[in-house]
Amino acid sequence: MRAVDLIRKKRDGGELTPDEIAFLIRGYVEGTVPDYQMSAWAMAVVWRGMTPAETASLTLEMARSGDQVDLGPIEGIKVDKHSTGGVGDKTTILLAPLVASAGVPVAKMSGRGLGHTGGTIDKLESIPGFRVELSREQFLEQVSRHGLAVISQSGNITPADKLLYGLRDVTATVESIPLIASSIMSKKIAAGADAIVLDVKVGGGAFMKTLDEAISLAEAMVRIGTDVGRETIAVLTSMDQPLGLAIGNALEVREAIETLKGGGPADLKELCLTLGAHMLVLGGVADDETSARAKLEERLSSGYALKKLKELIAAQGGSPSVVDNPAMLPSASRVLEVKAEESGYVSGIEAERLGIAAMLLGAGRETKADAIDPAAGVVLRRKVGDEVAAGDVLAELHVNERPQARIEEALRLAREAFRLQSRPCRPEPLVYAIVSAEGVRRLA
Amino acid sequence: MRAVDLIRKKRDGGELTPDEIAFLIRGYVEGTVPDYQMSAWAMAVVWRGMTPAETASLTLEMARSGDQVDLGPIEGIKVDKHSTGGVGDKTTILLAPLVASAGVPVAKMSGRGLGHTGGTIDKLESIPGFRVELSREQFLEQVSRHGLAVISQSGNITPADKLLYGLRDVTATVESIPLIASSIMSKKIAAGADAIVLDVKVGGGAFMKTLDEAISLAEAMVRIGTDVGRETIAVLTSMDQPLGLAIGNALEVREAIETLKGGGPADLKELCLTLGAHMLVLGGVADDETSARAKLEERLSSGYALKKLKELIAAQGGSPSVVDNPAMLPSASRVLEVKAEESGYVSGIEAERLGIAAMLLGAGRETKADAIDPAAGVVLRRKVGDEVAAGDVLAELHVNERPQARIEEALRLAREAFRLQSRPCRPEPLVYAIVSAEGVRRLA
Repeated sequence: MRAVDLIRKKRDGGELTPDEIAFLIRGYVEGTVPDYQMSAWAMAVVWRGMTPAETASLTLEMARSGDQVDLGPIEGIKVDKHSTGGVGDKTTILLAPLVASAGVPVAKMSGRGLGHTGGTIDKLESIPGFRVELSREQFLEQVSRHGLAVISQSGNITPADKLLYGLRDVTATVESIPLIASSIMSKKIAAGADAIVLDVKVGGGAFMKTLDEAISLAEAMVRIGTDVGRETIAVLTSMDQPLGLAIGNALEVREAIETLKGGGPADLKELCLTLGAHMLVLGGVADDETSARAKLEERLSSGYALKKLKELIAAQGGSPSVVDNPAMLPSASRVLEVKAEESGYVSGIEAERLGIAAMLLGAGRETKADAIDPAAGVVLRRKVGDEVAAGDVLAELHVNERPQARIEEALRLAREAFRLQSRPCRPEPLVYAIVSAEGVRRLA
Repeated sequence: MRAVDLIRKKRDGGELTPDEIAFLIRGYVEGTVPDYQMSAWAMAVVWRGMTPAETASLTLEMARSGDQVDLGPIEGIKVDKHSTGGVGDKTTILLAPLVASAGVPVAKMSGRGLGHTGGTIDKLESIPGFRVELSREQFLEQVSRHGLAVISQSGNITPADKLLYGLRDVTATVESIPLIASSIMSKKIAAGADAIVLDVKVGGGAFMKTLDEAISLAEAMVRIGTDVGRETIAVLTSMDQPLGLAIGNALEVREAIETLKGGGPADLKELCLTLGAHMLVLGGVADDETSARAKLEERLSSGYALKKLKELIAAQGGSPSVVDNPAMLPSASRVLEVKAEESGYVSGIEAERLGIAAMLLGAGRETKADAIDPAAGVVLRRKVGDEVAAGDVLAELHVNERPQARIEEALRLAREAFRLQSRPCRPEPLVYAIVSAEGVRRLA
């Protein structure tokens, strides 16, 4: 078998067999198929697409290219959750303890942030003492004992995906539904999940700008999951404005805690209940979405979910008293206000600009090597649909020592992120659609 | 400027500016744009094509990537000829002295053969003493004095094309009209031609299998030539059977000499007159094809063309008496005959199979490192349209010491190359069409 023939086959619109996909991916990891052949193949895939069978083969090959976590020792159906990434998305910090408190074991490996989107691991590290690295044994034992663990992706998970993603990033071959779908799903499968709930973000702040694109991606991922025997459901949610109010690591942890206490922004709570309900159904601890949702509401109001977060923090070396006293979290020395210059109604808040503003304040990384400031970030004081008077505070910028130019750029971006109009308006619905093996259910 | 953005632009169907093409090609030669980005770009070009402006920019950048031959010191309009490669194509050996004898200076750099097609340089080297390497000064001086020189492509001509072609070969990105056209034209432009006559082969033995494909390629090349100020004409000719009768280095030189003496196969003579007439017109020594053709016929019959070949051989260190006594050329120790198994009419002769047969006998190279046997090859005894009786000799295989398995494979291929039918038939016309800046003129 020769790589050039497989590239030609794909270039001409053919379908590669599982053996041919394995030849490419294994050869790439071993170094016998060079970068320049993989990038030509990737461009041919952007052009011609891949069949569901090819996509499933690629996913499995990438999942098998490195370590595969065996969650078998943990009892129950292990349900993983993945979000395609947004601004202010602190869902995992609430959702993991909420779902675990309802009896679904959560053995979660998360990532760090890069660019304008944050990462769960960075957020958790803003909790004093919280350790994000556990050995495989500690990880499994903690999930068995407490029902949850959230750690940094460690070991040699899906090296083929890492290599391929790095190559796609510099060869303009990122934008391919089957390549994106297989990249995400390969990591979830290698991480050992029995079932997967996907949160596919749609809108200006997300990678998928339109609902149709997002549905295509969701369908591809659900199809992969179904084909490889991992039940998968995708929830398509709005990223037309940031999720909740807080953007920035400690600020988001604080908001997560507030939400588990029964307060917090309505959209964040609603998203957690929606995703959590699907996780409970897939995890076999609820019969349907309605009963699952009722169970989760009860876990919130009874304080069990909050107690589970304390357990998580304590188990991973952090100080659980941060939950009772969020002032223990790092806070910034300065808070700058962005005020409305005119009155009206907020008609849009560009999540991407605010994500970049938070990054410039120190909440995120421009390059992988950057350190982050856990206290820095942005807190929204108004969301889409809110009425504002001239001079009202739209957002707060939380910042420590930082070059003045970056602060000014962040202020400018935060100002520009808000669009006002004279007529009243309503925000986009939070959940657009649910995609499962049964098909697409549009909710909005 | 970033390569990834230029790849994306082409991927999305955009047109790169001359500066953007220069950035890619110069960066590639300098090593700042890596192979894996160039191959992704090349696949995007296979997908999206290139505009004439992009193709011209690419051609000029590749022409400028290395040495550029300045033929300025030579008086007159220097006309180059290029063939897209065929089996038994010894045209240059006749055409260069024929055209030079009519007053058009020929300063030609040729290549060696690889695979089933031969190279002019290998053919000339079968003439005892013939030197294919001259210094730049010797080359120019010889053309000024004798009106012609044919040397091996030397120096650092179009390194960008060499790099890119090597990459395309292993990434399934060869099959792109603008990439093929710019590769050919960049070499001709770097070689200093004022005007260019292209022989674009069409048919089973050629790279372009259909007339439509060949016309597209010809149009692209003529367009480039026009855009960069080098008048260019393409003659589309049949490669449905080998050109002439001889395939193999010394065998082809012998046939070229015979043809200059007034004998030789009709198709070979006709092709030389057709290509030569266009060269004379472009070279400004004839007003139109008809008068150019008459002039060439006169140079053949008067013996001036043959005399010019002697001059060429003598000037480059060979023994000119080979022209009077072709028996001085290397000859093979054995001649094996391929006989017809039934009677009928030859309806087809697959040039590619015969090219491979000749290669297996030692006339060509399977890999660049192989040595060739100048005496080896195939001589056809029948061509398309000829009537044969069972037992008639269809072809001769000329071979020296050679592994028996290769000889048997060559015999099998030579046998398979001939297709016979019971009804009389005629060969395809030799010249299908002429493509110039004025458009396509179909002749058949």
